[in-house]
Amino acid sequence: MSGNKKKYKKVVVLLSGGLDSSTLAYLVAREETKFTRKLIYTLTVDYGQKHRIELVSARKISQAISSFSHKVIKFDLTMWGGSALTDGKKHVPVNRKYKMVKNEIPITYVPARNTIFLSFALSYAEAIGAGEIYIGVNSIDYSGYVDCRPTFIKKFQELADVATVVSVRDRHKIKIKTPLINLNKAEIVKLGTKLGVDFSKTWSCYIGKNIACGRCDSCKLRLKGFAEAGVKDPIEYKEYPRFYKP
Amino acid sequence: MSGNKKKYKKVVVLLSGGLDSSTLAYLVAREETKFTRKLIYTLTVDYGQKHRIELVSARKISQAISSFSHKVIKFDLTMWGGSALTDGKKHVPVNRKYKMVKNEIPITYVPARNTIFLSFALSYAEAIGAGEIYIGVNSIDYSGYVDCRPTFIKKFQELADVATVVSVRDRHKIKIKTPLINLNKAEIVKLGTKLGVDFSKTWSCYIGKNIACGRCDSCKLRLKGFAEAGVKDPIEYKEYPRFYKP
Repeated sequence: MSGNKKKYKKVVVLLSGGLDSSTLAYLVAREETKFTRKLIYTLTVDYGQKHRIELVSARKISQAISSFSHKVIKFDLTMWGGSALTDGKKHVPVNRKYKMVKNEIPITYVPARNTIFLSFALSYAEAIGAGEIYIGVNSIDYSGYVDCRPTFIKKFQELADVATVVSVRDRHKIKIKTPLINLNKAEIVKLGTKLGVDFSKTWSCYIGKNIACGRCDSCKLRLKGFAEAGVKDPIEYKEYPRFYKP
Repeated sequence: MSGNKKKYKKVVVLLSGGLDSSTLAYLVAREETKFTRKLIYTLTVDYGQKHRIELVSARKISQAISSFSHKVIKFDLTMWGGSALTDGKKHVPVNRKYKMVKNEIPITYVPARNTIFLSFALSYAEAIGAGEIYIGVNSIDYSGYVDCRPTFIKKFQELADVATVVSVRDRHKIKIKTPLINLNKAEIVKLGTKLGVDFSKTWSCYIGKNIACGRCDSCKLRLKGFAEAGVKDPIEYKEYPRFYKP
């Protein structure tokens, strides 16, 4: 065994339990080299989302990739709402046309969510001495979320470079990694399939009951991805959009 | 009464209940003009700090300035610690020389704390439609905290400009304001005195018992500020450093 010659490298992976971040987690887990063993610290955020059932998925995926540690940081964004995902009075829209889903800023946008998520990941990474933070943003199929764009990530990286002691004093920069940023949903499904992601453990539906609705934006984007990739989505849906044949 | 001619302007003020942010809150409250009435939304962060007694001070100061709303967002940074303020196994240092306090990165530095605080303030500001976020950072007397420097604030502003829908789509930028950034503690005490800040309601001690210790870095910096400003600190201390005559 040459195992003890390996260098350990700590990384933080933001994991919601959805299609994208689960594929990302598998990808990171596979990216070990002969000389480097990754210690994956998955970080899940319980922010008061209606679909908190995704937290269960995050735990399952974290176990599936044998992460070194899985933490759930909890806070309550329903305090100020501003999104259909965190405000009881705002309804998650269903059955919207794909073009609308693709181009509009939806009511499910949560103010500054990824800024908050990355801030926690940055704090965590600095505290444990991790050099990389992975986040599964992608800007192809959901341009409505401004904090999924490459520009946003670039600016967060610039902030991170001056925001922590390790980066300023120790010149040990914490890198924000976004390997999925230029992939569309079909490409993510294909990549996940190749990596052996157990999609049955993932959760995407915004409505958040025990069975995915098949009608919200998130279900539709997911099913469109599976349809285009020619892969069967193993999770059950209450109903299916016309473009997907179960 | 010409009151109803006034324009309302919402602002978010990050308020810890300490000397700096309390003075800041009073300053913001005083900055109303003839034509603009400010609605001040104070935001306090309960992050698992040992000196959580400061939360009581934050509430008192918020009441004293008649803020429109006071919210406390809660999460648990003791989950990963990394600081003497959030890790039960790390002790808050006491009786350090002023030069050390001034120049070293202290063990009380909390990884990426201000990045997290500003992220929440940004989310809150976007959700309620506020145009300004105030934070009481100052980089003169505590250069060890990298996330109190003008460079950090500048980078956070650049991030904020691309991170929210209001800034990207509506061109309604949310401004990060730091009126205390170039003041030292004595100048902040003088400013607070001029503004009528009730310093007896504020709390700075890191140890966080019922009486301030007078020995931790935060107590010493505070008392040094009062001493240099020639103002009596109205709060009680367990003991006093040599340079301060109670």
